[in-house]
Amino acid sequence: MATETEFEVESMHYNRLLLAVDDDDDESSRKAFNYACTLAKIYAIPLGIVSVLETGDLNIYQSLSPDLLSERRGEIAANLNTYVEKAEAFGAQDVQPLIGEGNPAHVILEEVAPAFKPDLIILGSHKRRGHNHIGHVAGEIAREANASVIIVR
Amino acid sequence: MATETEFEVESMHYNRLLLAVDDDDDESSRKAFNYACTLAKIYAIPLGIVSVLETGDLNIYQSLSPDLLSERRGEIAANLNTYVEKAEAFGAQDVQPLIGEGNPAHVILEEVAPAFKPDLIILGSHKRRGHNHIGHVAGEIAREANASVIIVR
Repeated sequence: MATETEFEVESMHYNRLLLAVDDDDDESSRKAFNYACTLAKIYAIPLGIVSVLETGDLNIYQSLSPDLLSERRGEIAANLNTYVEKAEAFGAQDVQPLIGEGNPAHVILEEVAPAFKPDLIILGSHKRRGHNHIGHVAGEIAREANASVIIVR
Repeated sequence: MATETEFEVESMHYNRLLLAVDDDDDESSRKAFNYACTLAKIYAIPLGIVSVLETGDLNIYQSLSPDLLSERRGEIAANLNTYVEKAEAFGAQDVQPLIGEGNPAHVILEEVAPAFKPDLIILGSHKRRGHNHIGHVAGEIAREANASVIIVR
């Protein structure tokens, strides 16, 4: 790129946003939600909000009784509804809740993103124990997604 | 975050952009430049454009004669000027060229970002050999930066 001077700058913005949320309540999650809502409102573009019921760890999965599993599904659905309502109240016009089950990065990369087709995936950094290092899920999505990825700190 | 319902969405946008460029001319680099210029123009915010003369590999470094090194520095400066001119012609009002030397990720994380203080770092994905995997430099910056990072694809 740097060796070529014959190009023109073109305006660019994103048209379809996917925000991943989870139960970790850290500052980056809140900022990621704010940023997703801001873009969705300003550009009047669709925003999908995905939450994944983590069942990647078989021991944890097996330890969830059907009742507990059902309860967790209900919690996730209720939390997603809260996000959707707040995003809509803020001014985002097309907000879709998306629920997955399994390994979060895998579900988002292999199921949710191919179906929803975002051009920007928005993630909190979920920094670990005081470090700035991003969490495993964010790192895997940043590395392997087909879409652009923003890691919000 | 998901368990808490008492919060309000707040508008959020970035105030200080750092775009990293290099000699790889791929589509993601062009898009990253377009995106950086678009944000800088729309929000009328400063845009730093950094290019690092890679000297991390000692064998390569040592093989660069003083003349060659001087020539490479001149090329990088000229290329950065091209970027700056195009960004300004597009409508970005405060564009700063930033040159580093050394290991690109290290220079950006340890020298350029702490001095320029961006709140968003914009990177091309530089996908490798047909894969979507991001390049090493982008991955390291995405993992370890203090600022938000967007990987443009």
